[in-house]
Amino acid sequence: MDQSRILPDGNDGIEKSVSFSKEFVDNFQTIFPNIIDEALSKICYLDSRNIRNRIKEMTVYYTLEKKPKLGELMLYAYAMLEDREAWNEEKRHQAYLLACVIEMGASYFLFTDDIQDDGKIRFGKVCWHLLPDVGTLAMNDACLLRSFIQELLQQNFSEPLFFKIMEVVNKIYFLTAMGQHMDVTLERDRNFDNFTMKCYCEMNEMKMAFPILEAPIMFALILSNRATKESMQQIHNICVDMGILFQIQNDITDFYNWNGLTKSSTDIQKGKCSWLAVKALELSNEDQRRIFKECYGSCDPTHVYKIRELYEELKLPQIFVQEKEARYKTFFRKINELPPGCMPDVKFYQKLFKLIEKFEI
Amino acid sequence: MDQSRILPDGNDGIEKSVSFSKEFVDNFQTIFPNIIDEALSKICYLDSRNIRNRIKEMTVYYTLEKKPKLGELMLYAYAMLEDREAWNEEKRHQAYLLACVIEMGASYFLFTDDIQDDGKIRFGKVCWHLLPDVGTLAMNDACLLRSFIQELLQQNFSEPLFFKIMEVVNKIYFLTAMGQHMDVTLERDRNFDNFTMKCYCEMNEMKMAFPILEAPIMFALILSNRATKESMQQIHNICVDMGILFQIQNDITDFYNWNGLTKSSTDIQKGKCSWLAVKALELSNEDQRRIFKECYGSCDPTHVYKIRELYEELKLPQIFVQEKEARYKTFFRKINELPPGCMPDVKFYQKLFKLIEKFEI
Repeated sequence: MDQSRILPDGNDGIEKSVSFSKEFVDNFQTIFPNIIDEALSKICYLDSRNIRNRIKEMTVYYTLEKKPKLGELMLYAYAMLEDREAWNEEKRHQAYLLACVIEMGASYFLFTDDIQDDGKIRFGKVCWHLLPDVGTLAMNDACLLRSFIQELLQQNFSEPLFFKIMEVVNKIYFLTAMGQHMDVTLERDRNFDNFTMKCYCEMNEMKMAFPILEAPIMFALILSNRATKESMQQIHNICVDMGILFQIQNDITDFYNWNGLTKSSTDIQKGKCSWLAVKALELSNEDQRRIFKECYGSCDPTHVYKIRELYEELKLPQIFVQEKEARYKTFFRKINELPPGCMPDVKFYQKLFKLIEKFEI
Repeated sequence: MDQSRILPDGNDGIEKSVSFSKEFVDNFQTIFPNIIDEALSKICYLDSRNIRNRIKEMTVYYTLEKKPKLGELMLYAYAMLEDREAWNEEKRHQAYLLACVIEMGASYFLFTDDIQDDGKIRFGKVCWHLLPDVGTLAMNDACLLRSFIQELLQQNFSEPLFFKIMEVVNKIYFLTAMGQHMDVTLERDRNFDNFTMKCYCEMNEMKMAFPILEAPIMFALILSNRATKESMQQIHNICVDMGILFQIQNDITDFYNWNGLTKSSTDIQKGKCSWLAVKALELSNEDQRRIFKECYGSCDPTHVYKIRELYEELKLPQIFVQEKEARYKTFFRKINELPPGCMPDVKFYQKLFKLIEKFEI
């Protein structure tokens, strides 16, 4: 591979970022299985061909059905951060590997979500846990996958990188599970006094902003040896609002999917603590709040319709547009306030914005 | 605490081992919750009191109901291996912490086993996943627990110990899940041609010998800075047969629990790949094999009775006694063949034997 094409000289970080991450995205269908095969062949205590095949099937089952957006984000950020002098074939391999790990981690949560929600179809395929030879082994498979992910990291990273990467990896699992806990509890308890913006943001900081936006950038920092306590904290401070916006956008998409687009709207019926629900409660007068309490979390079409009407009445779609603008503004204000010489710098975030404003999770 | 009492001078490692590990076992009901509280208070991103309480409840739910035998084994081995000069309060804390982590890891597998098998009662309590506020969150709780375990290790160990410990920890999860996969598959497929001693040993090397016997000793080696590729390999070579024996003993216990002792016998009904089933197939003539195929894995009491009769006819209880003696002999032959000056040495294993011959899992 022509390295100069990937990480060219000069200041235009965005070009090298685009070409490096695009290379990965374009070749993901071959890069990913190769990395898995290589790792499987290196596990000395994995004798059983059956289990080897099982791990292989599981890793590709969802991962190859989706665009590797998180891996792309990580590589895009990494290419901006890495020194040209430090660049070598091993670094490229480690970067690709880490991008693959991120994608597998995302699949791990798809597996566990589907088991918990008893999902039926994902990416047009039968959900993994419903396959004939999976069944009660689904949870065990998730455990295998998580262990395999760590095995991959052990094979390819030594101290001190390993320690730092494992910290972020564990924080992804931990925070996502915490966010999931809040999500299920809020939905189950049906205590609308807890549907506050504070709760909503806390939950989605954990299950969306960190794993989807902050962590991939942190991996890029670690891999380029630029991770310090300060730089990691800075990533969080600047990106958290944008990360929560991803979830707000998801909630809005769910709302507009009512007329039967790719995925049908279910948040109202399930009684999810969505941005729309929280905002509606925030803006409702007493009558409107009564309607909300009566109708939210019900599958009765009349109830669903009333909630949708309430959302329109409260102009939530318009408020969403303002919310988005406000979050963009906050992002730019924060990066413009960064002290000179800080790492990552304002240019990094400006370029990052070009990628994440188009992000759809 | 009087340190000289725990790790006294002199050569009699067994005394200090007994007193150090006994101290832990005797005070486990206070040591364990203290370690959990301390760790929870240190997680800066854990704001939610609900989640904090949930993790606390989950960690103690099974862990405090059982004797901390794996922790005891690890501390017993550690006290024999550690230099008196290197001993300090931090080491004691790390050793206790690691012992607690091992116990929590064992609980993790109880949680996941109960979810998979839809268990009802454990230690006389309703299984965790059946508690009213758990339900669909059970799997998420298991994920929280695994993340919390790693968090504990991150808080208390730095490189290079962290890397080595995490390698063993991940191998525990990975091998146990692989063994579990074999277990479920063998039971489900009902292809008795696969009920071979090779398969049985492979499965229980993964789900019993490694997590229950080898790993605790490996942790002791790591903590005392004596872990090398050779010493870790030696532990495996010497202990694996004894570890598999633990499972054989479990299978025998299941057989004798027929008349309703603490736990009732279920292996025959479920069609488990037990030592008795494998041995029976190994020793059966054509007629006996036919009976086995007809009756094994059935809940019909006549079938169960026929299998039990077959086991007696083939003198499996007597063969078990011989098997046990043979494994003990192999263990002593192996340790007596150890080259002089190797680490751990023959004395270490002789003392270890005094603990593990009484082991009941």
